[in-house]
Amino acid sequence: MAMNTFTNTIKNDLARTELFSPLTMSSATTFLWNSKMVAQINCRGYMTSQFMQPEPSKYSYAPNLEAKTFIQPEQPYYADHPGRFFYIKNEETGEMFSAPYEPMRVELDSFCFSAGTSDVKWIINKWGIEFTITLSLTKDLVVELWSVEVVNGNSKALSVSIYPCFSIGYMSWMSQSADFNAELSGIVATSVTPYQKVEDYFKNQELKDLTYMVADQVPDSWCCNLLTFRGEGGMHNPSMLQETRLENKPACYETPVGVQQFKQHLLPNEKQNLNIIFGPAKNVEEIKTLKAKLLAKPEQFKDVRQDYSDYINKGKGTLSITSPDADFDHYVNHWLPRQVFYHGDVNRLSTDPQTRNFLQDAMGMIYIAPAVTRERLLLALSQQKRSGAMPDGILLTDEAELKYINQVPHTDHCVWLSICLQAYLDETGDSSILSEQVAFEATPDAEPETASVKVHLDRAMQWLLSATDARGLSYIEQGDWCDPMNMVGYKGKGVSAWLSLASSYAISCWNQVCETYYLSSELTNAELSESKKTIAEFASAADTLNLQVNKHCWNGDWFARGITDDGNVFGTKTDVEGRIFLNPQSWAMLSNAASDSQYKLMNNQIFSQLATPYGVTMLAPSFTQMREDIGRVTQKSAGVSENGSVYNHAAMFYGFALYTKGQNDLAFDVLKRMLPSQQNADAQGQLPVFVPNYYRGAYYQHPHHAGRSSHLFNTGTVAWYFRSVVEGLCGLKGCGNDLLIQPQLPSHWPTLKVQREFRGASIELNVIKSDKIKDTVVTINGEVSAQHKICDVQAGQTYKVEVLLPLEKLSLPQLTIVMGVSGCGKNAVGEQVAALNNRVFVDADSFHDESAKQKMASGTPLTDDDRLPWLARIQKFLAMLLDNRQSCVLAYSGLKAAHREMFTQLGFELNVVHLNVAQEVIAARLEQRESHFFDPKLLSSQFDALEVPSSSEAVITIDADKPLEDIVREINQELSND
Amino acid sequence: MAMNTFTNTIKNDLARTELFSPLTMSSATTFLWNSKMVAQINCRGYMTSQFMQPEPSKYSYAPNLEAKTFIQPEQPYYADHPGRFFYIKNEETGEMFSAPYEPMRVELDSFCFSAGTSDVKWIINKWGIEFTITLSLTKDLVVELWSVEVVNGNSKALSVSIYPCFSIGYMSWMSQSADFNAELSGIVATSVTPYQKVEDYFKNQELKDLTYMVADQVPDSWCCNLLTFRGEGGMHNPSMLQETRLENKPACYETPVGVQQFKQHLLPNEKQNLNIIFGPAKNVEEIKTLKAKLLAKPEQFKDVRQDYSDYINKGKGTLSITSPDADFDHYVNHWLPRQVFYHGDVNRLSTDPQTRNFLQDAMGMIYIAPAVTRERLLLALSQQKRSGAMPDGILLTDEAELKYINQVPHTDHCVWLSICLQAYLDETGDSSILSEQVAFEATPDAEPETASVKVHLDRAMQWLLSATDARGLSYIEQGDWCDPMNMVGYKGKGVSAWLSLASSYAISCWNQVCETYYLSSELTNAELSESKKTIAEFASAADTLNLQVNKHCWNGDWFARGITDDGNVFGTKTDVEGRIFLNPQSWAMLSNAASDSQYKLMNNQIFSQLATPYGVTMLAPSFTQMREDIGRVTQKSAGVSENGSVYNHAAMFYGFALYTKGQNDLAFDVLKRMLPSQQNADAQGQLPVFVPNYYRGAYYQHPHHAGRSSHLFNTGTVAWYFRSVVEGLCGLKGCGNDLLIQPQLPSHWPTLKVQREFRGASIELNVIKSDKIKDTVVTINGEVSAQHKICDVQAGQTYKVEVLLPLEKLSLPQLTIVMGVSGCGKNAVGEQVAALNNRVFVDADSFHDESAKQKMASGTPLTDDDRLPWLARIQKFLAMLLDNRQSCVLAYSGLKAAHREMFTQLGFELNVVHLNVAQEVIAARLEQRESHFFDPKLLSSQFDALEVPSSSEAVITIDADKPLEDIVREINQELSND
Repeated sequence: MAMNTFTNTIKNDLARTELFSPLTMSSATTFLWNSKMVAQINCRGYMTSQFMQPEPSKYSYAPNLEAKTFIQPEQPYYADHPGRFFYIKNEETGEMFSAPYEPMRVELDSFCFSAGTSDVKWIINKWGIEFTITLSLTKDLVVELWSVEVVNGNSKALSVSIYPCFSIGYMSWMSQSADFNAELSGIVATSVTPYQKVEDYFKNQELKDLTYMVADQVPDSWCCNLLTFRGEGGMHNPSMLQETRLENKPACYETPVGVQQFKQHLLPNEKQNLNIIFGPAKNVEEIKTLKAKLLAKPEQFKDVRQDYSDYINKGKGTLSITSPDADFDHYVNHWLPRQVFYHGDVNRLSTDPQTRNFLQDAMGMIYIAPAVTRERLLLALSQQKRSGAMPDGILLTDEAELKYINQVPHTDHCVWLSICLQAYLDETGDSSILSEQVAFEATPDAEPETASVKVHLDRAMQWLLSATDARGLSYIEQGDWCDPMNMVGYKGKGVSAWLSLASSYAISCWNQVCETYYLSSELTNAELSESKKTIAEFASAADTLNLQVNKHCWNGDWFARGITDDGNVFGTKTDVEGRIFLNPQSWAMLSNAASDSQYKLMNNQIFSQLATPYGVTMLAPSFTQMREDIGRVTQKSAGVSENGSVYNHAAMFYGFALYTKGQNDLAFDVLKRMLPSQQNADAQGQLPVFVPNYYRGAYYQHPHHAGRSSHLFNTGTVAWYFRSVVEGLCGLKGCGNDLLIQPQLPSHWPTLKVQREFRGASIELNVIKSDKIKDTVVTINGEVSAQHKICDVQAGQTYKVEVLLPLEKLSLPQLTIVMGVSGCGKNAVGEQVAALNNRVFVDADSFHDESAKQKMASGTPLTDDDRLPWLARIQKFLAMLLDNRQSCVLAYSGLKAAHREMFTQLGFELNVVHLNVAQEVIAARLEQRESHFFDPKLLSSQFDALEVPSSSEAVITIDADKPLEDIVREINQELSND
Repeated sequence: MAMNTFTNTIKNDLARTELFSPLTMSSATTFLWNSKMVAQINCRGYMTSQFMQPEPSKYSYAPNLEAKTFIQPEQPYYADHPGRFFYIKNEETGEMFSAPYEPMRVELDSFCFSAGTSDVKWIINKWGIEFTITLSLTKDLVVELWSVEVVNGNSKALSVSIYPCFSIGYMSWMSQSADFNAELSGIVATSVTPYQKVEDYFKNQELKDLTYMVADQVPDSWCCNLLTFRGEGGMHNPSMLQETRLENKPACYETPVGVQQFKQHLLPNEKQNLNIIFGPAKNVEEIKTLKAKLLAKPEQFKDVRQDYSDYINKGKGTLSITSPDADFDHYVNHWLPRQVFYHGDVNRLSTDPQTRNFLQDAMGMIYIAPAVTRERLLLALSQQKRSGAMPDGILLTDEAELKYINQVPHTDHCVWLSICLQAYLDETGDSSILSEQVAFEATPDAEPETASVKVHLDRAMQWLLSATDARGLSYIEQGDWCDPMNMVGYKGKGVSAWLSLASSYAISCWNQVCETYYLSSELTNAELSESKKTIAEFASAADTLNLQVNKHCWNGDWFARGITDDGNVFGTKTDVEGRIFLNPQSWAMLSNAASDSQYKLMNNQIFSQLATPYGVTMLAPSFTQMREDIGRVTQKSAGVSENGSVYNHAAMFYGFALYTKGQNDLAFDVLKRMLPSQQNADAQGQLPVFVPNYYRGAYYQHPHHAGRSSHLFNTGTVAWYFRSVVEGLCGLKGCGNDLLIQPQLPSHWPTLKVQREFRGASIELNVIKSDKIKDTVVTINGEVSAQHKICDVQAGQTYKVEVLLPLEKLSLPQLTIVMGVSGCGKNAVGEQVAALNNRVFVDADSFHDESAKQKMASGTPLTDDDRLPWLARIQKFLAMLLDNRQSCVLAYSGLKAAHREMFTQLGFELNVVHLNVAQEVIAARLEQRESHFFDPKLLSSQFDALEVPSSSEAVITIDADKPLEDIVREINQELSND
């Protein structure tokens, strides 16, 4: 280093120190502070700063959360995000690229990312070479198995260097280093998990603080030092790759990385293979053992991969369908059971799963390994309190404790007990579980108490009934199923309409269980009459719950979500945000709180307010500011997670409820729309290998973001999805000793084939629609079953079931467009027409995005560039309604003939009504409006733009300068004339 | 989007879903799991994975810690690290670069990073344009003030776009978004700090969850969406910059960023300016207020900058020196008081500073604002327990609580009370503080108790004496000054030699305070005799402490660090790691536990084992594995932080002690070597604008990393640095009513001028060395002062002080090289010669790096490429000894004449002794050695390489095939003949 890298000077009487190159001392920093903040500034522009409020805080954040945290929704990626990259160098030309794609992002000749059920592959072509990168796991070790297969498709020999580059990253401020271990012939990074208290030292001793990366070949060179590896080039062009060899550089209290160079000389058509293991370990001995087990011979890799594949295939499930929809079949037959198995077999890799998740995940396992469901139910009940209450989480290990959200009191956990138990019994008929003896949670101050599962469940239901207010509605405390709805009842008064309905449903399920599986067991007369009495009391209590919810929470068109501590009913028409919630509607259907006429009203509102092309949102409109009487949910970003996303768990409850109501088309649409699709790939960005916990909602608020997947695969959705497919779509539900046969095909499906295992029997179902019959005909092994069920199902038997369904004759759904310039009254008219005809009302203006609304509000006329995406959104929405066979009324300006033309092709039976008014009349009306975003000055531009419908368009023109009721009456007459 | 972005297929009976481009769905992922782990894999190679142990853990880490954490030592930077970048586009050519340098890293025509005391500037030239970027803060707001001044130095007009790009980053998983606020004409990012418990909602309400970036000009375009801004180009080449305008893109639950485009058309020589404010806010109103206050007129920026500069200048301090060393003066006059002021004025921006830091930082303030020292002392005492014990941290606000390390019990806090108080009284003479009444910590079960500071201090000293074991040594519990030494005494038995010595010193300080400032106050006879009795008792107790440490912890050459719970004395010759600790030696000097002869022995060991060219390390060798009877310090990376770095706080104690021992050269060397220097820039990588908390140590273990700065500017070092400069170097220490005049110049300084404020008086000191005198002559305002002090200093007076120091006649330090082939006995001989002559012993082999040691152990001869850096390290070390005027004995093979030649130029008086033995004799000896890393097979290569010293080299050749004592005697005779 030359002298005078920097100089000390005085300027204007103040000291300065100056550095003349950003290269010589790239970490050089200085700092500034005041009484509230401090900032450290690096000479190249990096900067770390914090301020006091009163604890140290950031305002310019690092790009990720804590190093040890959960997988995040919509995980943001960035240049230094953890990854497994393979830099590839052509040793002849010096050219480079990185596989699969990051971090160099060099164009490839071909690319394939192939997600298998038990592995992931990338197949990449470049320079006439095919690279196949495979990742799989083992059955029960913490190690990644990586293979790179290289095939030279050129007619001449070629040399390449493969540099696997696996992120290790900032491990610990206490200690972190990495070096090449010659004996292992691989990279080992060591660290000490940071701690300060001596007791944590003893706790941390079992931690696997090492990270290793070992190949089955000796590398030509290596580097474990991230900063040196990257150099000035950065991750997208690491400096060290410019040289022939890596520098064999360790990391010494520096950020580690695992990079190794493997030179391969490939003859024409030659194939070479490289295997690598990567993972954490407690010590070097453990890595040696792993290496011997996995990398000593090529077969070992193959064998453990097969073991892993076998493990995954244990989750294949007991159902296989063949429908007209191959993509749907693909999900249901492969990815759905896999996701259910993931949840149910490993409990989402938690030590204290939330009780509701634990029970619903166990419910999904009835189709895969019902013994697991049984075991989980018993485990959960062993942690039940004597009062009947369930804890917020189930502890899976002796050391486990309730953490994070499980430290917040929620009131819904008992609900899932009877629901899960009913599903288990219907699937297995194993009524012995009811007399299984299980201890209640031990308490220091009382004798141990043990009771049968029947008693446990009775207490759970009684607890639900006891945790209610004077009205008989269920307290919500700091949340029900919806965790972040934490301030509705935190003062001890607020109640949940949803939970009241869910309690009613759960009690009904329990009564059904008792009637079907308990009363039929060997009971004494006293037990029998006692039990019947309990059933009657429970039934009456469930009815009361339904009644009270109707009394306090029905707002004329839908059910409210609850009543706050201060007595405010919320989730109703008077709410600007959170006006309607999906769950109370779905569960009112399940609990039978909703009459058929109520259901029809609810249905229109669900389609008007909650349905989107990406599924049904959980609430709308999404909250954009804190409501202190609702809580944390209102602070989440609008359209994200519980704040009005298409939260699939809630959507699935709705779909399940629709099947119970015989709404086959609507129910199937929920199932289908939940799967990532080709059509929505742009919006969703997800492959159909799992159902995510949400797609973005806030459909009218943030139309450009709606549909985006969270990419989070932990969700209670899938157990219900599986149940809906088995019990609803396929209609193969157990009941007592029988299997009911009640398939519920969507109207556009002519056939369905199902292969199903049930209590050891094999069911082969073949459903065909026919216009030759009027009522469903079920034959079992050739014999007609009037009861539509297989009675007394016998294990080991095969049942060939044929179901002939009458082919429905369906009329086309109707679309009535009420058009006219702004101010002509099309919204008011449209709403009334929709209400009178029991149709869904659609307001075209609500599909404008924020920029268009601002434009209009500022008096700038919209251009066609603004209108075309808007029209596309409206049409996509109408297509969704059409899929659901919903007739609707659209209020839409319809100024341009070409735009009107677009609506004729959608598939609806179409009526267009033009509300014709003079400009002066409207100008007067608009001046009185306040809330609408339309600038009255734009009116004349509207009249200029209006292309009056020609006679060829078959538009009904109505003079709209008269009272609303007259207009509506006139339109209704026209519609009934059709 | 085209259909068939992906396809579903079945291969080998297993389902697969395939994606054919990395571009169409860049976030597409799949996942794999087993019973122990789960991984989510992105199609482009990103991956997030976790495993259970039993809680979810990582092994491939994100590149940073938690978003909200402290500034880290050796902060790792990476592409997406928070920064303030300015992309600059030449609108004529389309060329771009980024200022200051990141993230594009494009070469600049010139670059200057200029760290001022109250601002930071970068001056950059490119395309004939000069860009000056300035950052400053305000006095007490949380806002960064940024300016970009652009001057067109071309003879023609030019257009550029300036795009300030300020990182905001991942703010929260609950809610994060950003948009352009038209009214503010700036970017506002909003978020909700994640929480789950309802009580935290109320706590968090005061948080500033918004981040804003507002300029004084309306931008031409903007973007707040990091991912869209970066696009495929990445931070080093953002896609959105390829277009003429930014896309005006908000972030909607997406990672925010602040980017704005400002087009500037610059005439020849035209200057334009852009001002930006950036920071956190609670709401938009707050930002509006800030904008009005800071950006409404150009003068506002200038004014608040001046206010800030005025604030920083309040910390200028009361000392200014002019010495022969301009760099040293620059630090002492400007950056040192600034760093002391930072610590003392804002308490390191903590709400619960550690008690020892709080008190030492307050001590530094005696030279800047002694009223602050007084206030801090009283605040600390108000939290003292009645037992005399001090809490681990001082709570600064009502809401503050003891956190992190302050929850671990440490035993040294009382020590700092009397030390700080003595410094305060010597500086101010304010003896009134001793009678100030202060309450003890309130406890729920006792009446409030108030007592004088004198009583508080007596109790603190008594507590120190009571917290001792049967031997009278101080318990260490879970740490003393050294936080992570947490397992020496966690079982309640272990003791600290350092703390025993520190207690002794602290008690002496308190006795001095009482003698100087208390006994002279108006006391009753009873008080006086009581007080004298206490002083005598304390003095006796301090002596006993010294005695007991000598009895139990002196190992013949140095003091051990302590005795563990199990009774093991550690930090002694029998330890392979942590053999010697610096602190017990330094504090034995301060407490007078060490006699002069002990000091000499210690000194040799400090130079042999702890001293490095980058400063004196805190312990050596650094620990490389956990010692469960010492604790967490042994788990830190070797050479980092407390585990054997040049931990400047400890080094400074040593320097301070050296001044008390009159070791002027050694003491100055500590001060000087602590400053980042031009010579060590490569190793340190830090500018001399602050003293960091450490430089890497483990000098012999990791020679390539030694000297690297932590870049952490929080350190207790600086208060002691200031005291050492004032009291030691300048020798201007207050005592009672007087100011002592005892300057302690290093021997190579002929002069020193000092300007010092003291108790309102102005001292102008002029020190000159002269060969005309034998004893120091002090004149004050022209009159000779026999007492070498200004008696009864009067405020408002100016004292011109001249000190004539006798010029020392110094002999050259001696370097004796004992050379010869491996096995000739040079180490054993060298050690004995060093010991007999009281010199530092240096083993050349210990300077080999790991790779050379491995080479030798594996039988590969070293090449000159291996030897040259090794020789350079030895010479750098010897130069350090020379700076400290230490004579030494070097055991060194010295095979090549050219290498030997290098040692003749260092400046020592040189003797070279060649130990000559026959090859067979050595071969036999080497075969018996075990621990040495030299492979006996290399011996013949050594004999081959040996260039036998010629007569011109003046080498003493000794036949070494005889008993050790004979050889040593012969060498000593030769040396004394010199």
